[in-house]
Order: sequence, then C-alpha cells, then structure tokens
Amino acid sequence: MILGLLGTAEAPRTQNAFTRLEALFADDMSAVNALIIERMHSPVGMIPDLAAHLVSAGGKRLRPLITLASARLAGYEGTAHIKLAATVEFIHSATLLHDDIVDHSTMRRGKPTANTLWGNSASVLVGDFLFARAFSLMVETGHLRVLGILAGASSIIAEGEVRQLAAIANLDLDVKEYMQIIEAKTAELFASAAQVSAVIAGLDDTGEQALARYGRELGLAFQLVDDALDYSGSEAKLGKAVGDDFREGKVTMPVAKAYASADAEEKTFWTDAFAKKQRSDADMAHALRLIDKHDTIKATLSQAREHAHNAQSALQIFDDCETRKALCDLCDFVVERVF
Amino acid sequence: MILGLLGTAEAPRTQNAFTRLEALFADDMSAVNALIIERMHSPVGMIPDLAAHLVSAGGKRLRPLITLASARLAGYEGTAHIKLAATVEFIHSATLLHDDIVDHSTMRRGKPTANTLWGNSASVLVGDFLFARAFSLMVETGHLRVLGILAGASSIIAEGEVRQLAAIANLDLDVKEYMQIIEAKTAELFASAAQVSAVIAGLDDTGEQALARYGRELGLAFQLVDDALDYSGSEAKLGKAVGDDFREGKVTMPVAKAYASADAEEKTFWTDAFAKKQRSDADMAHALRLIDKHDTIKATLSQAREHAHNAQSALQIFDDCETRKALCDLCDFVVERVF
Repeated sequence: MILGLLGTAEAPRTQNAFTRLEALFADDMSAVNALIIERMHSPVGMIPDLAAHLVSAGGKRLRPLITLASARLAGYEGTAHIKLAATVEFIHSATLLHDDIVDHSTMRRGKPTANTLWGNSASVLVGDFLFARAFSLMVETGHLRVLGILAGASSIIAEGEVRQLAAIANLDLDVKEYMQIIEAKTAELFASAAQVSAVIAGLDDTGEQALARYGRELGLAFQLVDDALDYSGSEAKLGKAVGDDFREGKVTMPVAKAYASADAEEKTFWTDAFAKKQRSDADMAHALRLIDKHDTIKATLSQAREHAHNAQSALQIFDDCETRKALCDLCDFVVERVF
Repeated sequence: MILGLLGTAEAPRTQNAFTRLEALFADDMSAVNALIIERMHSPVGMIPDLAAHLVSAGGKRLRPLITLASARLAGYEGTAHIKLAATVEFIHSATLLHDDIVDHSTMRRGKPTANTLWGNSASVLVGDFLFARAFSLMVETGHLRVLGILAGASSIIAEGEVRQLAAIANLDLDVKEYMQIIEAKTAELFASAAQVSAVIAGLDDTGEQALARYGRELGLAFQLVDDALDYSGSEAKLGKAVGDDFREGKVTMPVAKAYASADAEEKTFWTDAFAKKQRSDADMAHALRLIDKHDTIKATLSQAREHAHNAQSALQIFDDCETRKALCDLCDFVVERVF
C-alpha cells in the first residue's frame, strides 16, 4: 500500500518532464559540466579522483538546472549563469561529502560513498576544496549580491545540518521545527539557485522573490518526498538502503507524524527504538507497520504536493512560456518520482 | 641539547615583541574580537558553543594581527581591515576544526579538541559554518579582488592538507615537496592575511607582492618551528603532547631531514616505524635519538630563521616606522618562541 502511493501510471509523463527540462538546457548544461570538470582539477590527484566519484557521475544536476532555467525565465542573456550553476553544484557536492560523514552513509546513488572508499579525512578536505572552488567561481561573476546570497545560504545550510544533528533521536521535535530544519538544510540552496539568476538578470524585487519562493517550495517538496521514499521506495531506485534515516536515528517527517498520532504503547516503542544505539530489522518492520497504520507516508507526500503547488504558483507572475511550463512540470516530477 | 636550541636567554625580549605588537593594535583587535563573537552567533546553540571553545579562548590571533598591522603599514585608513582580520581568523578556525578531525587530535592549546568534546560530525559542520561566515564577512567589504585572493587561498589550503594526507608515512617525500605542502597548508593564509590589506589600501603591485611575501615567508618559518617543537618543545608550552606528528605517522621536516641523512639501518627503522599502524614510546625515543644524532631540529630551526629573515627583507621597501619594526620583530618572535 505504501509503495502504491508513489504511483507508476503517471511515471512516463513526469519522467518526460525532467527529460524535457534537460533537453531544453542541454547546451548550457554541457558548458556547466565542462566547467565543473575544469574546476575540479588539482595537481593533487586524490582531489579530482574523489570529486569525480561524486560530481561527475550519477548526479541529476537538479539544482544547476534550476539556475539555468531560472536565468532563461528571467530573460538573462549573459554567460554568468553557467558559472553560477556550477557554483551551486559545487556547494551541493561539498555538503554531500560532509553529510555522508555525519550520517555514516555507505551508499549514495547506487555506489559506495566517497568516505567509504577514501576515508573520512579525505572527504572532509575535498569537501572544503569544492566549497572554496565554488566561492572562486562565483567571485569571477563579479556580482556582489549573488556572493552574499550564496555565502549566506552556505551558513544556513550548515546551521540546518547542525540542528538536525542536535535533534537526532529527538521525538519531541515537532513538525514545525522539522520544517525549519529542512528549509535550512535543503530548501535554502534550491531557493538561492533560482534567486541568483533573478539577480544577474536584473529582475525587480518581486521577480527575485518569486524565483526564490519557487526554489524554496520546490526544495521543501523535494526533501519531504525524500523522507517518504526512505521508508517506502525501492532500493534500486534510491541507490541506497531503505530505512537509512531510521537506522541512523534521524527523525524525519513520516516518523514525526506517526509519533504525533501515537498511542501510549506506540510512543513507548518509538522512544525505546530511538534511545537504542542501533535499531534492529524487527524495529524497522514495526516502525513501518506504525507508519502504515497512521498513513504518514501519504500525509508526508500530500504535504510535499502542497509545496510543489506553491512553487508552481510562485511562477504565475512570469509570462506563460516553454521554460515556465518546464519548471512547473518539474514540480510534479519531483513529487512523483525518485531521484 | 635539543631543548637548549630553543633558547631562554632572549625570551623576555622576544616575548615583548609579540606583546608590543598586540598593544599597538589593541583597539583594532577589540573590534575584531567583538565582530568574531557577533558573527559566530547562531540560534543553533551548539554552533556558538563549539565555535567559542576554539575561537574565543586560547588563540593568539596571530593571523588577524598580521592583517591589521599590514593595513597600517600600507597606510590604509578605512574600516574593512577589521572585517578582513575576522575573516582570516574564521578561515583559520574552520581549518583547525577540520584538521583536528583529520589528525585525530585530542588536545589543542592545552584543552581537549572540539571533536573530542562534541564529536567529529559537529566539528565538520561547525567548520563549514565558520567557513561560510568568513565568506559572508568578506563579501561585506565589497572588494572583489580580496574575495578572489581568500577564496583561492582556501582551496590551496585544502589542497595542501590533502597532499599531506596522501603523503602520510611517505618517507620518500623530499624536502622540496614538504616545503610545497607547508607553503600551501600554512603559508598561503599568512600570505593572504597580509596581501589583502595591501589590496584594500590600494598599494601598487610591488607593495602588494612585498606584503604577500612577508606573510608567506613568516608562515613557512612558523610551520618549520612548529614541526621542530613537536619533537623538542615542552608539553606545557605546546598545549598538546610532544611527538604527535610522529604518532600520527606524519612525516615533517625533522624526520624528512633525518631520513635523508640516515644510514641503511636507520632507514630500516624509519620505514618500519612509519609502516606500523601505531608507533610505541620506544619508537618515539629512538626517533628522538636519530633526530638528535643528525641534528635535524637545529637544521629545521635554522631553515626557519632563513625564512624569517626573508620575511623581514620583504618589508624593506616600506618606510621605517613603528609598525614595520613590530612586524620584523614578530619574525624573530615566531622563530624563538612557541605559540
């Protein structure tokens, strides 16, 4: 039943939505990819090796695509959007390298994580390298406001991650607090990825805020779907084990909602399970039963749908065009498909 | 005998050199400290707690002092140097947090390291936060060239750290390669700390390069002394255990030089010792004997003195003044004292 919610009937249409977006920006994305390869280079061989493992392969380039599409929607005609799209992907990659250390993750996108292959130390340092290269790239665009936005976003992302770390195994985390965490750790970069394109295009404040809102709402939808899939997706699609969040003791939306609706006995189960150092397969099976009982995957996904809808609404101030349609379709795709 | 080289007779004079420099820039440094406290703030309590453990206490603020003094030497009359000094300290603090993870360090400045108290995950993320805040601070100065210099320095520092990581236990590391590593991981930030002040003061290229060279040479001297002290200092002065580099399998200058002069039997000792997972106290004692035999602490310190002298020479293009004298005296202090 849980899996059924993810739907397969609409898959071809929504899959095409992402493919269409990729096709619309194929030339720009080739330029972004070339720039990424160029700026990952270092005479210290371990750096491009490790970075390539994460950056060159497997990534969907969702965030840089948002930057590219936002630039076109905003009527931008220069070339700075290429550098900013690469910047956004570098910041994202740096945070992934560090997150995998924090989460003790062993698999990502169907491959062993960089920290598994090269060790935590190398992942810490190469993350720092990518982060620094991201800043160098955006400095080259010469847009001080853009620099301010992305530097600010970077500290907000780190704050969100620390907050999540501090909230580990905290079942009293309410839904509002959880939304603040994912707004910081995930949605902030989506928001910035879109907003910076508005800035370089010289849009007024209304246009800038509309694109920022599009990114933020899409980012919230993306993370909520991610949280739902962690309990309901298939391993092949996820590229990692199902139930990782639970095993790591990370309270995400499906559990927060299940705990909020729990009776006394269920509350005891959740409390005991998250108080343990490790959670067993039997714990995982019982967690899934309770999540199913309270239908919190469905509730999480319908919350994601709301945010996707908000993202679509934010773009209504722009003229109807192929790019706007593609960005709106992307919202449906994010809710219905797994990255 | 090794300890004797560090000298005590001149201590009062050189100790005064640092105190004099601090006194000369006491007002500016108060402003820097206030800014550091302000920008470490976050509603996520773990961030200021962890950051304060490292940043607020114990640090000598050597790098920001160089920025402040360089700005005065360059005739700068604005206020951006305060933000840049805080930026430099934030970048330095972020790298310290991450280095302590990489090196598995348990003590720094006489206190348990942040990773020991809060764990590696928190140290990774708070390091990222400080790094991001550093960028926000420098964006506020509005100097694009300064941003380029410090962003570039940040990736060079990470490259140097990765290179050192890759070189762990590598006794074939020659002295030239070792110098390249410390130029990247240590001297680059010293160089940038001085150079950015030349940029905001609007010095010509000669002035800018002179200050950059001052910082770079001082940084090399600083690191070489650090390497020597790791084998010859007192624990109380170091604020950490003697022999940490050896225990971590980190080949630094005293060992690189001892290995270069080693006979066959000694080479076997070094190779065996660094091939081990852990080095015993007996290994450490024998290492110290070989270092003593080949007098490589003295050789390392005299190399440090050369770089300190180069740093002093670099300032000769500036008019003789109290600031220039203080910066020159700092070079002697760095070679003769322990931070």
